[in-house]
Amino acid sequence: MNVDIRDLAQKAKKASGELVKIDTHEKNNALLKMASALRANINRLKAENQKDLSAGKEKGLNTALLDRLTLTDSRIEGMARGLEEIAQLKDPVGEIVAQWRRPGGFEVGQMRIPLGVIGIIYESRPNVTADAAGLCFKAGNATILRGGSEAIHSNIAIAAIIRETLQTCKITPEAVQLISDTNRANVGKLLKLNSLIDVIIPRGGKTLIKRVVEESTIPVIKHYEGICHIFVHREADLAMATDIAFNAKAQRPAVCNAMETLLIDAPIAASYLPLIGEKFRQTGIKIHGCQKTQQVIHIDKLATEEDFKTEYLDLICNIRVVPDIDAAIEHIRFYGSRHTDAIITNSYTISRKFIREVDSSSVMVNASTRLADGGVYGLGAEIGISTDKLHAFGPMGVEELTTKKFIVFGEGHLRE
Amino acid sequence: MNVDIRDLAQKAKKASGELVKIDTHEKNNALLKMASALRANINRLKAENQKDLSAGKEKGLNTALLDRLTLTDSRIEGMARGLEEIAQLKDPVGEIVAQWRRPGGFEVGQMRIPLGVIGIIYESRPNVTADAAGLCFKAGNATILRGGSEAIHSNIAIAAIIRETLQTCKITPEAVQLISDTNRANVGKLLKLNSLIDVIIPRGGKTLIKRVVEESTIPVIKHYEGICHIFVHREADLAMATDIAFNAKAQRPAVCNAMETLLIDAPIAASYLPLIGEKFRQTGIKIHGCQKTQQVIHIDKLATEEDFKTEYLDLICNIRVVPDIDAAIEHIRFYGSRHTDAIITNSYTISRKFIREVDSSSVMVNASTRLADGGVYGLGAEIGISTDKLHAFGPMGVEELTTKKFIVFGEGHLRE
Repeated sequence: MNVDIRDLAQKAKKASGELVKIDTHEKNNALLKMASALRANINRLKAENQKDLSAGKEKGLNTALLDRLTLTDSRIEGMARGLEEIAQLKDPVGEIVAQWRRPGGFEVGQMRIPLGVIGIIYESRPNVTADAAGLCFKAGNATILRGGSEAIHSNIAIAAIIRETLQTCKITPEAVQLISDTNRANVGKLLKLNSLIDVIIPRGGKTLIKRVVEESTIPVIKHYEGICHIFVHREADLAMATDIAFNAKAQRPAVCNAMETLLIDAPIAASYLPLIGEKFRQTGIKIHGCQKTQQVIHIDKLATEEDFKTEYLDLICNIRVVPDIDAAIEHIRFYGSRHTDAIITNSYTISRKFIREVDSSSVMVNASTRLADGGVYGLGAEIGISTDKLHAFGPMGVEELTTKKFIVFGEGHLRE
Repeated sequence: MNVDIRDLAQKAKKASGELVKIDTHEKNNALLKMASALRANINRLKAENQKDLSAGKEKGLNTALLDRLTLTDSRIEGMARGLEEIAQLKDPVGEIVAQWRRPGGFEVGQMRIPLGVIGIIYESRPNVTADAAGLCFKAGNATILRGGSEAIHSNIAIAAIIRETLQTCKITPEAVQLISDTNRANVGKLLKLNSLIDVIIPRGGKTLIKRVVEESTIPVIKHYEGICHIFVHREADLAMATDIAFNAKAQRPAVCNAMETLLIDAPIAASYLPLIGEKFRQTGIKIHGCQKTQQVIHIDKLATEEDFKTEYLDLICNIRVVPDIDAAIEHIRFYGSRHTDAIITNSYTISRKFIREVDSSSVMVNASTRLADGGVYGLGAEIGISTDKLHAFGPMGVEELTTKKFIVFGEGHLRE
């Protein structure tokens, strides 16, 4: 199927102009109806998903990928509940963040408004289609969705159900666009439409993100990688440090906020390393340690420069003994990905220094890096965790899908 | 002179790590000392500027460009005062924007931090060197400055004075980097250093900005163009509408917040057009009008599609009669550049509709578009006016040169 990407983006831009006219009740009502429609169309969704699964098996996708691709009853229910949760979120649009009077007598304020048109480029999980469209819609944005080719039948079905629901609610269905032609050239075309699209959010592996960043003339908010650290300071409670480090590494190792490197303050290396070493060994966590670590406990291999830069997403952990907090912060700044980093300490002064000097999107004291999450933070559903400092840094909820414009109220005020 | 751009960016990144350790007093003190140093080096600055002026004359630069390039006593004094004003601004770094407790008992907050390393690419005005470096420094950022080749001697001298002052204040001079080799290839190299530079701010003409957007893998905040509109609604005070439209067009036509197109509500076309037509004629403002305008007053030419998309920056004004407010908003959304747009009306309902539905960075009621300015709004010095919706939309002050990180305070909190 040949798709005119520019035409599709023009329709989305036009729709974004319509969405500003819709109030919160209308948006929430549509979100709830989308949830019901997904439930009502469970057989249609599973039938379309079956086409993707058959094609995937033929293409020889591995079990993990096929699993991610599968829409079960409970996953469809999960999508529906996700949309219902989005309906519960506070609508950020229209909030007057501040307003003040200037000496000349006119007033200046800042009002939250939708970003406009958001392009989402994502990989095989079809539930992103509903999640992303729902979250962007709640914030008043039109979306252009471009999912992976493996999930194309599922994605088309989900988007069609959402568009049918919008139509039922007398909202323009053009507010949710899915690129049904998975030809890669279409992504290239999309990334150049900077007069029509306000932001691109890529969700996927490093290769996808790298391509988007290199080709896009549209601003990109990216969720890159999580090379997260925990620094166990000399004044830490060692039992707490063991629990937190273990939780951060092992509770769910395949996610971006899992710890990859444990930094240990030199004065406690001899007392702490045996504790964490034993805990890791019991769980089969492999240790890539520095030479000083090796002097105290058994390691699986010496950690290299490359190891310190690696997001394992697996039961492997770098351990490095550092002389002091300054060295720990330097390590984090040099090797980290500015995602999430934590210190374990009982020192008031040191906790303040760590909070001040580490420039990651989440900086924690005495807590597991695994807590870095929009839901855990109380932001509601998240569209991703930004590792870009611009616009949104860290978990991105519905508020981060808006911007602020200045509003000015005068009575004939001129520039002198 | 051959410059290693990566090395320079690495130094800036390292310096940005040092700047987080410096408190507001130290930053303000350095800014005040930079101002004094500029004054003390007035002869050195003028001598270096003379080299640029001689080269410019030899290259045949026109009078306007030579004027922009010239550093007079009063312009040097202006740079010094600019730095003193920046010292007076509130330091945004370290502000806790919000903090809340989660049900599990840990606390989550958001703290303002510097963006990190900011690259500024600008054209011939040498005062930008001091303004941009000062503003970025106040917000705790390291800067990499790349000014135009015409001003290279002036820029090198200004940057050297700033770096000398930093050294005197025991702050790393690497916090302010100037690319002294104006070979254009260096800009290309700079724009690819996304692991070292956090944001690029281009200040200059459309060609420069287009190049930066196309080549950069670093996030860009751009100040593109100002195609600003005023819509005179049927319930406007026509005398006020005349004063505002005239101020917006004529007070300083060569700037981005000057009006380019005047939209007039059809029911008042016959009564309002003669008023504004007369005012424009008296000042020699050329009118590119629509056919309906032509039926009422003399126009200089019929306005074309292209005219409505043009930033004249000159004493030329498009005038178009539109059937109603919806048509006015549609015109603004279609032809505008989302910079600044105003409505003149006494209708409460219509003013609310305009404020809600126009998605420009400044939306005004009964005020001149010329008021869109960081200083006028009370934000202090501005680095530019962003026409990108991401991160900062509208006048960008010192606060927009920061980002927010999440901070988490726990007592052994884990993810369950």
